[in-house]
Amino acid sequence: MKIPNHIGIIPDGNRRWARDRGMGVEQGYNYGLKPGLELLRLAKSYGVKEITYYGFTVDNCKRPKFQQEAFQKACIDAVKLIAAEGTSLLVIGNTKSQCFPQELLPYTKRTDINGGGMKVNFLVNYGWEWDLSGLKSDGDSKNSIHSRINSSDISRIDLIIRWGNMRRLSGFLPIQSVYSDFYVVDEMWPDFCSDHFEQAIKWYNMQDITLGG
Amino acid sequence: MKIPNHIGIIPDGNRRWARDRGMGVEQGYNYGLKPGLELLRLAKSYGVKEITYYGFTVDNCKRPKFQQEAFQKACIDAVKLIAAEGTSLLVIGNTKSQCFPQELLPYTKRTDINGGGMKVNFLVNYGWEWDLSGLKSDGDSKNSIHSRINSSDISRIDLIIRWGNMRRLSGFLPIQSVYSDFYVVDEMWPDFCSDHFEQAIKWYNMQDITLGG
Repeated sequence: MKIPNHIGIIPDGNRRWARDRGMGVEQGYNYGLKPGLELLRLAKSYGVKEITYYGFTVDNCKRPKFQQEAFQKACIDAVKLIAAEGTSLLVIGNTKSQCFPQELLPYTKRTDINGGGMKVNFLVNYGWEWDLSGLKSDGDSKNSIHSRINSSDISRIDLIIRWGNMRRLSGFLPIQSVYSDFYVVDEMWPDFCSDHFEQAIKWYNMQDITLGG
Repeated sequence: MKIPNHIGIIPDGNRRWARDRGMGVEQGYNYGLKPGLELLRLAKSYGVKEITYYGFTVDNCKRPKFQQEAFQKACIDAVKLIAAEGTSLLVIGNTKSQCFPQELLPYTKRTDINGGGMKVNFLVNYGWEWDLSGLKSDGDSKNSIHSRINSSDISRIDLIIRWGNMRRLSGFLPIQSVYSDFYVVDEMWPDFCSDHFEQAIKWYNMQDITLGG
């Protein structure tokens, strides 16, 4: 079996999931925590080398305050859960805006936690324009685009899995995603089960990977 | 009905289509010409404002010479067919490499042809790294990323339709694609029929477009 080195996770559908259950939309995020941890352990057991979670974005911070507070708290809680596992953890995003939770600042340098292990990246207040804004500082460099963006420590993504039925990237790491295979799960993220992940890996195994060639 | 302003077209599967019919893979491209023209007229009849075809890429030029010659010729022929319609036409890509067909140089400035009309962009020897390499020249500009890339004349894409069953962007306009909805047709491009396009538009109409918000 061909295992993708790096999987990108777009855990979408928390708000729709909550609304469908008669809850306030902001209550959905909390139900995404357990899936995140389950997925982490599952990916590790498959031998995946790197995983990137799409936490929240600069764009998301245009939403009402009560929603912002809910997804900020969920991301803080998720990072704490991940930090209790053995990983090489990096939280990355625009730390200079108010929307970035101060509690996550200690994680913004990659750190081996509990003996290290799989690379885990967590995008917090990430923006694709913010990411590429780092490019301009390099003048006439012959260095690759990838090596000059703010998220250069995140490697090329082999497989992106998006929950919640939408077929779009929504600004997710445009440079690392140029050649990624894109698998969409119809179910909402809080309804995550291991079968979704396994089906995605099976599908990935049927793809002819050419990296644009 | 909600009509996407700008549709990106990834006409993939020409080689597989030819191979499945016992032809040489390089013979497939020629069967993609008629579909390209049909699609153009169909999109125009729907009121689409802009359409971008993924011709060939810098990456593709690593393929064997006989394949390169075949897809270069197909792109020249396709552009000539399009140039017989009423469009505002732009051929765009890295003109400084040998892989760019000299016959297409006259089209590399946007030109209203036969009275003008829908914007049609045709990517020829396009590379995402080439596209973004233009960014560096701007120093500390506050201008948007989009306005500073080499393909800045191509607008944000609402809907990408890819033929040939692959679920990936393969380096297609990463900046204009950050928020695009992505529809995949299982059939190979030479098997194009209007129903594929109509299904894609129907699907697009069911999407909740948020531009990352």
